[in-house]
Amino acid sequence: MPKNDLLLKALRGEEVDRPPVWMMRQAGRYLPEFIALRDKYDFFTRCQTPEIASEITLQPIRRFPLDAAIIFSDILVVPQAMGLPFEMKPNVGPWLENPVRSAGDVEKIRTGNLNEELQYVFDALDLTKKGLNDEIPLIGFAGSPWTIFCYAIQGQGSKNFDQAKAFAFTNTAAAHDLLQKITDVTIHYLKEKINHGSDVIQIFDSWGGMLSPNDYLEFSYPYIEQIVNALYEQVPVVVFAKGCWFALEEMSRSNASALGVDWTIRPQTARDLTGFKKTLQGNFDPSRLLSPPEKIQEMVKEMIDDFGTYKYIANLGHGILPNVPVENAKAFIEAVVNYKK
Amino acid sequence: MPKNDLLLKALRGEEVDRPPVWMMRQAGRYLPEFIALRDKYDFFTRCQTPEIASEITLQPIRRFPLDAAIIFSDILVVPQAMGLPFEMKPNVGPWLENPVRSAGDVEKIRTGNLNEELQYVFDALDLTKKGLNDEIPLIGFAGSPWTIFCYAIQGQGSKNFDQAKAFAFTNTAAAHDLLQKITDVTIHYLKEKINHGSDVIQIFDSWGGMLSPNDYLEFSYPYIEQIVNALYEQVPVVVFAKGCWFALEEMSRSNASALGVDWTIRPQTARDLTGFKKTLQGNFDPSRLLSPPEKIQEMVKEMIDDFGTYKYIANLGHGILPNVPVENAKAFIEAVVNYKK
Repeated sequence: MPKNDLLLKALRGEEVDRPPVWMMRQAGRYLPEFIALRDKYDFFTRCQTPEIASEITLQPIRRFPLDAAIIFSDILVVPQAMGLPFEMKPNVGPWLENPVRSAGDVEKIRTGNLNEELQYVFDALDLTKKGLNDEIPLIGFAGSPWTIFCYAIQGQGSKNFDQAKAFAFTNTAAAHDLLQKITDVTIHYLKEKINHGSDVIQIFDSWGGMLSPNDYLEFSYPYIEQIVNALYEQVPVVVFAKGCWFALEEMSRSNASALGVDWTIRPQTARDLTGFKKTLQGNFDPSRLLSPPEKIQEMVKEMIDDFGTYKYIANLGHGILPNVPVENAKAFIEAVVNYKK
Repeated sequence: MPKNDLLLKALRGEEVDRPPVWMMRQAGRYLPEFIALRDKYDFFTRCQTPEIASEITLQPIRRFPLDAAIIFSDILVVPQAMGLPFEMKPNVGPWLENPVRSAGDVEKIRTGNLNEELQYVFDALDLTKKGLNDEIPLIGFAGSPWTIFCYAIQGQGSKNFDQAKAFAFTNTAAAHDLLQKITDVTIHYLKEKINHGSDVIQIFDSWGGMLSPNDYLEFSYPYIEQIVNALYEQVPVVVFAKGCWFALEEMSRSNASALGVDWTIRPQTARDLTGFKKTLQGNFDPSRLLSPPEKIQEMVKEMIDDFGTYKYIANLGHGILPNVPVENAKAFIEAVVNYKK
């Protein structure tokens, strides 16, 4: 058990004096020490070299009084293991030369236990565990099957993932096959992450919010639910489905311990929709970290007042932006740590 | 008064047998006759040549039993008139060589009545009015001040408009100055659009949904409200704020006649939030027009059942996509026209 168990307490719904705090993408481009490593190693080299991934994970922990670490990795390591060789293309982002475009393509994709291909992630977790010295919990993560599906079909980032949606709506059986394949690989992967010391698992559904509520319940949520059900007896699971406020009520009936929310929902609305059945995590607008530090502190206080300290994890509503000054990130974290009702 | 006054009735909250229907971007790239003109004239030439803009506006009306026309134009003609020379750059989209980046830049921007610069829009309206022969109403439109602000600062489209938001959060006084300047020009522009036969005005807030509810109420909504208040005594105003479900309750207290909603909100939720105080417009997922026509018809029926025929305008939840087959668009429109409870 980590000495600082504030995050675990909040996930279990125990009383705390102040909420735990961590930031999505806290090991990221706003840190000069991260930039130094980025200039030396390309993106997937950083993910695939355990020493580097572990070092990057620990960087923000040395600087800030964070209540959790999250392993540095990428959601696309899963489709890579499945035989979809994603690259990180300069000025483009994630890039797959031959996206999945037919039922035949889906059939060829590997599934099942692909953990051998992902050993570097487990090694990075082992190293990080040692580096953390049981001070704070370590979060492991994966993308939601729908989000991975979006990249696999579209082959790159997109404003609306219209090709991925078109595939789902016209090639529905093949879409469900692919989603199930991703789900199966992800469950094996996350169980092994738990075996290698992940105290908490977070599932990122970055693109579920592109779907209508009905389509979300067909193409995204059932697969997330399978993953949650496979893991929740071992560790607490956090589901962060960006833009999916419309499914919060449904998700509050799941076995997840916590639900992440983005900044477009008022804390009170999120509480109304989930009725304190789940711990909530979020939801500071990442762009608001560009405000002056005093303004950030004031807004953090307001956010915690609104969510309450019970069943709440302070975080951003999405990943921290690269152009945020370090002192602003610090102001955010310290405002939570020093919170008084 | 147009002979087909179904749209106006729905906007006034009068009983109708079936809801009126039109599609955002109905004059668009899914039509072969539009493509033919696009291949001959670049984007802003099409906007700025009244004969072409009017012809494009009328194209979908000749094909489909639509209940409204919407003038072919672009929201960026307003910042162009203000001295920000937006171009349409191939593979990039809207592009401004020198975006607004300081309070000094804001000061230099023209404001007030710039209708002389926009005469080509009014000429296009006059021609279109003649072409429509009073059969159906004509909708005029503008972007919301926040949405125009986003492009003016960012200089191009963006996933999160982080530069625009950073400007608003760090250069707040200059941001409000610019928003007010855009508002003033827009009010003059829309009043003249009404003088040239616009029976209805729609305001597109494409990027309001990037803001938190509090920031929306500071940076976007007050300017929309100014515009609505300047116009609503002359014609009905529709406010379509994509992704702004969180402000629906607030917006239902405005002087707008109708509120547009996107496909991420259930019809029942939208009704609950607005309490039948406003006509609602939307909200078919544009990607769902890629489904087979029979599926589209079934989903349209369900959508109308859910919204009800009272105070409702059938539409998409955003603009039609370029890759939608014409027969699918037709299936959507006909499903509304042939709707039986």
